[in-house]
Amino acid sequence: RRGEMAKSTQLIDNEVFRAYATYTGIVLLKMMLMSLITAYFRITRKAFVNPEDTASFGKGESAKKFLRTDPDVERVRRGHLNDLENIVPFVGIGLLYALSGPELSTALLHFRIFVGARIFHTFAYLIPLPQPGRGLSWAVGYSVTFSMAYKVLKTVWLL
Amino acid sequence: RRGEMAKSTQLIDNEVFRAYATYTGIVLLKMMLMSLITAYFRITRKAFVNPEDTASFGKGESAKKFLRTDPDVERVRRGHLNDLENIVPFVGIGLLYALSGPELSTALLHFRIFVGARIFHTFAYLIPLPQPGRGLSWAVGYSVTFSMAYKVLKTVWLL
Amino acid sequence: RRGEMAKSTQLIDNEVFRAYATYTGIVLLKMMLMSLITAYFRITRKAFVNPEDTASFGKGESAKKFLRTDPDVERVRRGHLNDLENIVPFVGIGLLYALSGPELSTALLHFRIFVGARIFHTFAYLIPLPQPGRGLSWAVGYSVTFSMAYKVLKTVWLL
Repeated sequence: RRGEMAKSTQLIDNEVFRAYATYTGIVLLKMMLMSLITAYFRITRKAFVNPEDTASFGKGESAKKFLRTDPDVERVRRGHLNDLENIVPFVGIGLLYALSGPELSTALLHFRIFVGARIFHTFAYLIPLPQPGRGLSWAVGYSVTFSMAYKVLKTVWLL
Repeated sequence: RRGEMAKSTQLIDNEVFRAYATYTGIVLLKMMLMSLITAYFRITRKAFVNPEDTASFGKGESAKKFLRTDPDVERVRRGHLNDLENIVPFVGIGLLYALSGPELSTALLHFRIFVGARIFHTFAYLIPLPQPGRGLSWAVGYSVTFSMAYKVLKTVWLL
Repeated sequence: RRGEMAKSTQLIDNEVFRAYATYTGIVLLKMMLMSLITAYFRITRKAFVNPEDTASFGKGESAKKFLRTDPDVERVRRGHLNDLENIVPFVGIGLLYALSGPELSTALLHFRIFVGARIFHTFAYLIPLPQPGRGLSWAVGYSVTFSMAYKVLKTVWLL
């Protein structure tokens, strides 16, 4: 058992894998933050979607008026969905990329630009900043994931 | 080739990784079940979104009336999206956590509480249970993922 | 350090893992393509959701009319969400499956059918093809992921 344990922890000792784990942890926590921001806006704007969520505001019509959409809530939700659409490919392709043996400096460049772009994207969406701020930050993150996918497919290709 | 094969299977022989694989398998199957429940409600409530899905009900106006939203369908879909938002971070961070060398008992505690909380969350959403049942189960799962992320970042930090 | 590096790259030398990485890369790139198709339809149909996205069309009422939903945009977005719901379980369960020591030919069969089914699903959704084309391709992908989950849980089960 000890031998196995030692082997299984060696992946986490690899510097590229440690960098991947650090940036993936940060960007997934950032994505999780969107849930808290949604909850914050739902409560402060009193805008809910499930009848059982408004029960504490009273019964019948007085509670029903809080079953509504709010522009700020919808904006955070769109940012959250955009995170899912972009961070899921980063996490999956990034793992394969980290295992494909890139240079540490090249890998760090990819991870830093992606995570920086996604943090900027969140601010650009929530403030909101004028376009093309949000669009460009989306395109930068997208390009980084594409670049990692190219390296992975070039290295492992077995169809 | 045999040497590689033996090495690649050792990860799956590690007990913490086996526990991770078991709970991740269960919770991803639970998430996949949401698709079947959505399909069940779409068919029994006759509430579809794509015109081509109602073609078997006839042509023209007679089929068009089934292109509508239904509260039960929308409820399952919200549960499904909430699963995506919470189970994706668990799968990603949980993998890194399993590789970061935690005690088996601590890891099992994290995995069991998360998966239990998400199964409870699904029942709380679909029945639905009065709040704060659903909210609390969401918060428990969220906290478990946060705790694993903290352990991962403390272990691997390389920015 | 060299020893670690050598070990960490061995996973990527394993043929089953290489096949997993190839098909996961392809299917995640396919999912990412949905973002570009959404952007294409938003721009050609002039159908946006964020006020700041229509600023280049002028100010006030003249820009406001482009804040609307468009059937083609919504169709691509549904396809994208369906991808997330189905490709996320494939990526997670597929990784565990690839590590659970399946035969290369069996693994390739799973990966090829899943990725083929999801590519067909996208065409079926966007053209759109008459049902049950889209429904069947969804079911095929779903069944492949279920089959891999069964193999994973049978191999690793540690609750």
